[in-house]
Amino acid sequence: MIKGPEEVRYTVIGAGNGGLAMAGYLGLMGFTVNLYNRSEEKIKDLIKDPKIHLTGAVEGEGKLSMVTTDIRETIEGSDIIMVTTPATAHRELAEQMAPYIKDNQIIVLNPGRTCGALEVYETLRKSGCTKNVIVAEAQTFIYACRATGPTSARIFSVKNEVKLAAIPAEKTELVIRLLSAAYPQFKPARDVMETSLNNFGAIFHPAPTLLNSGHIERGQTFEYYLEGITPSIGQMLERLDAERMKVARVLGVKAISAMQWLEDSYGACGNSIYEAIQNNPAYKGLTAPKDLKTRYIYEDVPFSLVPISSLAKNLGIETPAIDTIIRLANMMTGVNFWEQGRTVDKLGLAGLSPAEIHEFVQNGYLEIKRPEEEVVA
Amino acid sequence: MIKGPEEVRYTVIGAGNGGLAMAGYLGLMGFTVNLYNRSEEKIKDLIKDPKIHLTGAVEGEGKLSMVTTDIRETIEGSDIIMVTTPATAHRELAEQMAPYIKDNQIIVLNPGRTCGALEVYETLRKSGCTKNVIVAEAQTFIYACRATGPTSARIFSVKNEVKLAAIPAEKTELVIRLLSAAYPQFKPARDVMETSLNNFGAIFHPAPTLLNSGHIERGQTFEYYLEGITPSIGQMLERLDAERMKVARVLGVKAISAMQWLEDSYGACGNSIYEAIQNNPAYKGLTAPKDLKTRYIYEDVPFSLVPISSLAKNLGIETPAIDTIIRLANMMTGVNFWEQGRTVDKLGLAGLSPAEIHEFVQNGYLEIKRPEEEVVA
Repeated sequence: MIKGPEEVRYTVIGAGNGGLAMAGYLGLMGFTVNLYNRSEEKIKDLIKDPKIHLTGAVEGEGKLSMVTTDIRETIEGSDIIMVTTPATAHRELAEQMAPYIKDNQIIVLNPGRTCGALEVYETLRKSGCTKNVIVAEAQTFIYACRATGPTSARIFSVKNEVKLAAIPAEKTELVIRLLSAAYPQFKPARDVMETSLNNFGAIFHPAPTLLNSGHIERGQTFEYYLEGITPSIGQMLERLDAERMKVARVLGVKAISAMQWLEDSYGACGNSIYEAIQNNPAYKGLTAPKDLKTRYIYEDVPFSLVPISSLAKNLGIETPAIDTIIRLANMMTGVNFWEQGRTVDKLGLAGLSPAEIHEFVQNGYLEIKRPEEEVVA
Repeated sequence: MIKGPEEVRYTVIGAGNGGLAMAGYLGLMGFTVNLYNRSEEKIKDLIKDPKIHLTGAVEGEGKLSMVTTDIRETIEGSDIIMVTTPATAHRELAEQMAPYIKDNQIIVLNPGRTCGALEVYETLRKSGCTKNVIVAEAQTFIYACRATGPTSARIFSVKNEVKLAAIPAEKTELVIRLLSAAYPQFKPARDVMETSLNNFGAIFHPAPTLLNSGHIERGQTFEYYLEGITPSIGQMLERLDAERMKVARVLGVKAISAMQWLEDSYGACGNSIYEAIQNNPAYKGLTAPKDLKTRYIYEDVPFSLVPISSLAKNLGIETPAIDTIIRLANMMTGVNFWEQGRTVDKLGLAGLSPAEIHEFVQNGYLEIKRPEEEVVA
């Protein structure tokens, strides 16, 4: 059933910036790789001529085996399904894949944001999938990259190390071994709670966007990190980060602070988040979103902040700063991100204790059914 | 005891932009007028030579009777005490004046923000003042003006009409009659709840400041209304305004919407607050605060938004948008504006029904003591 890493057959889901780069790279490396996109418009050139041209950190032409809008045929025969869409698409993708998933197929979310693997895993089960599927999530996307046309992408840089974990967690090592021929950069996290709670987009994306919303909405450009994160906004980020760390602590998850992460990732230090960001030359040139209809709100509020807040409530922890940012986003957009986002009920975690959550992500099920479930069953 | 409007003796409290203009004008009109300021620094030139030079809508030189930092001597013999300080100073001023206030002296807050007269009235009582004092509040400041030096001010414009109400409300007509020789523009509101709840600074000041905080804190200049209030920020202001209107409705107070106010005050119309503001040429040139240490937060959060929120809670009304802005201000400044601000307990309104609040502002006391008070008494 399980072959060697060199023979893994891939499907890449999503033909956006990340999907084109990843599919192109896998093709260039000689792997069998399918590319799926929901709408045909984006892939019509690749359907005619299935080759992706890469420039930057990786140069060359990657050949694709199949380019399609048919979810059934794209995953059939694939060993690893690399999802590169925004988290907004994860749930619907899981519903669409559910009827066709086979035993031992592996889904990898690149990245999962917070609790992406849990949402996909739970959605597959709720959609009637009874196969032994493995759902993994990467902590972040492996490339900094951009599509340069419908059949080409530029890879600016490749990360040295990306944490990854699977549900069930005992399968994490297998997933990493199978991915290793293509991506030796993936390293195991203890479980998906670790990858989920070390999601720094939750801290760095929604709050600075909302607190610069006047400037963003009137379409003016500025340095997102270096100009957009002022001392008071930095103070807000520290509060958000402290709440994230507290949830991780109660769950027994190894989380690192945003300050520590800035130091580890960029060597950027300071006495505050504001100072550390000012001391990070790698942020130079990263400009703000051009309007408020940005993934920094529409993806990171429902799929990063909402699950952290919902986990916290489930554990009796208060997250006033996180909740303030979620409410503000709701009010300014008119969208109810609580409803749209990942809450513990959608993740199969409602009412679970830290020990039960640990058991669930470890095994993919709870050994002893909880009393309420038994009554219903 | 009560003389004619021409013979009213005034004290102006505060030698800032508004205080200099008002004291200068009253002096120029021939009234007896004292000027008080807490610190001597600001008034040391006026102590030597008590004349204020006015330019703009009013031109000439106003002579002052007394310029002092002594609260006792400045209010002694005065009929009307015109307070022009920020609302942040109201409580402390009331404590300082309490021992020296005489029967029938009138304190007028220019303006009161939300529940300024109530806070001063209640603070006087708590500080042991048993005199028949009248505390009034104007809905807004009568001038657009600016100090041009330590002894001069420029009055850009004079408002045609400013609503004013007193505690007790039966004294409103008397206050307006006494003020009329100097300021015929004051018109009676039903009571101080009307002047307090038609405080548009609550809507227009804190939220746009916070939602443009990146731009403000990095010291860049922009048109506060015309550029700073974008469609999404306008949507937030509409939510804040709807909550303010709801509190007013439950209290039976005649409040007008921010949209209506823009039309009434400036003839500015539109299908949204955003559009109406864009259609208001009078906002042209009004630039944003230069940093986040601005009255738009430090005055309008605790003395405009907090009292509206506290009144709402007291009445069982939810104000999620207002509370979100207050929490955001707390988190970004590190100040607890709930604690600092005007809550119903500081205003003597805790636990009162709308009818009891009405009775209290009408008479200055409650006819029938509430059971809890009787037990304590």
